[in-house]
Amino acid sequence: MTDLLVALDADDTLWHNEPLYRGTRDQFCAMLSRHDPALIDEHLYAVERKNLAHFGYGVKGFVLSMIETGLDLTQDRLDGADIRRIIGWGHDMLASPVELLDGAREAVEALAADYRLILLTKGDLFHQESKLARSGLGGLFSGVEIVSEKDPGVYRGAMVRYGVTPERFVMVGNSLRSDVLPVIEAGGHAVYVPYAVEWIHEQVPAEALDGAHYHRIAHLRELPALLQQIAAAAHA
Amino acid sequence: MTDLLVALDADDTLWHNEPLYRGTRDQFCAMLSRHDPALIDEHLYAVERKNLAHFGYGVKGFVLSMIETGLDLTQDRLDGADIRRIIGWGHDMLASPVELLDGAREAVEALAADYRLILLTKGDLFHQESKLARSGLGGLFSGVEIVSEKDPGVYRGAMVRYGVTPERFVMVGNSLRSDVLPVIEAGGHAVYVPYAVEWIHEQVPAEALDGAHYHRIAHLRELPALLQQIAAAAHA
Repeated sequence: MTDLLVALDADDTLWHNEPLYRGTRDQFCAMLSRHDPALIDEHLYAVERKNLAHFGYGVKGFVLSMIETGLDLTQDRLDGADIRRIIGWGHDMLASPVELLDGAREAVEALAADYRLILLTKGDLFHQESKLARSGLGGLFSGVEIVSEKDPGVYRGAMVRYGVTPERFVMVGNSLRSDVLPVIEAGGHAVYVPYAVEWIHEQVPAEALDGAHYHRIAHLRELPALLQQIAAAAHA
Repeated sequence: MTDLLVALDADDTLWHNEPLYRGTRDQFCAMLSRHDPALIDEHLYAVERKNLAHFGYGVKGFVLSMIETGLDLTQDRLDGADIRRIIGWGHDMLASPVELLDGAREAVEALAADYRLILLTKGDLFHQESKLARSGLGGLFSGVEIVSEKDPGVYRGAMVRYGVTPERFVMVGNSLRSDVLPVIEAGGHAVYVPYAVEWIHEQVPAEALDGAHYHRIAHLRELPALLQQIAAAAHA
């Protein structure tokens, strides 16, 4: 057991999430088939961005944004039955089985044996807790932090709460914007594990990723070996 | 500074919340004025209960439940413009100013001087954090716990996390079901401060409130004196 604190992101790091949204977007585009799918997607994305400051992340806000987009594109003539279908997709997404990424369980089990491990995820508190419970991984984490936004202050707060110096804090996740940049800004280590489907607007300047605290791996399987290096360097 | 840990609920304990929901329900009933308001309210309540297991607490789930209720009562013929109004009410609720209860700021300031004080509230993470920030009270709490449900396990977890024995844990809030019963079950002290408008279905059996760990005050102003008694008893 070394003294690194390893924090893992959840959505699209431990379990699949983006395909669920992508699938629902596709159904939504098919429903409004009189419109160009690219335009629908663009409008929905704009509505989501506008609503983010009020709704935060998560399925419920996404459903409300789909309804609003549907009303916009139909001059308020969206069928009641279609609105029901949209709400139904939301229920389906919330109830959808938690599908772990290939090798995620083995990686988390291996890490839990050697490190203090926490889950540090953004999003809807209720839904994330439900997904963690259904993932069967809950018992492997010594702490669960569900936050509304991932910024340097939130990471500093977690370091203080778990009594670890930035040099011994390692965040692992699939989002450069949420799991990497703010962690490096807070002085910690960040391990980027890209997900197959990149979320839109995740582009960050390359120079921001140019430092000893930034690491990139292709798969969670590579994490134990990388952590040994980080731990050794922290002890050096 | 004594060694009690004092946990305060937020909605309808520190700031007004229920009137916001009540006001929106009234607007919703007025919108569907062809139906009996009592029936609308009853149906909405049933839909909310059904959705609670999927949505959790909060404004976004409430908005989705209003839309569903509106569709139910109109055989799916709810106007697009009316759906927009419902979504707009949600935005209004989320953006609504945080109105502290009379005397709440003074009480929290007085408590913060003498006790380790945390906020322990249920609901939507994003919205609760936003309300706390706007309340201006954030700096007075040494910890903020936003939870998806308040049950004995959650309270035991908080006691462990803050390193306090049940005997030295005091929860203060307006809900018998959330702030009182599960706390007493977890071995802590519970202080019930009723809010002017009681939430529906809060009735609990009287014998559950019959014990040395149950306290009731009419106003947060009375809390410092009560806490001195509890602290003295804990030291005796």
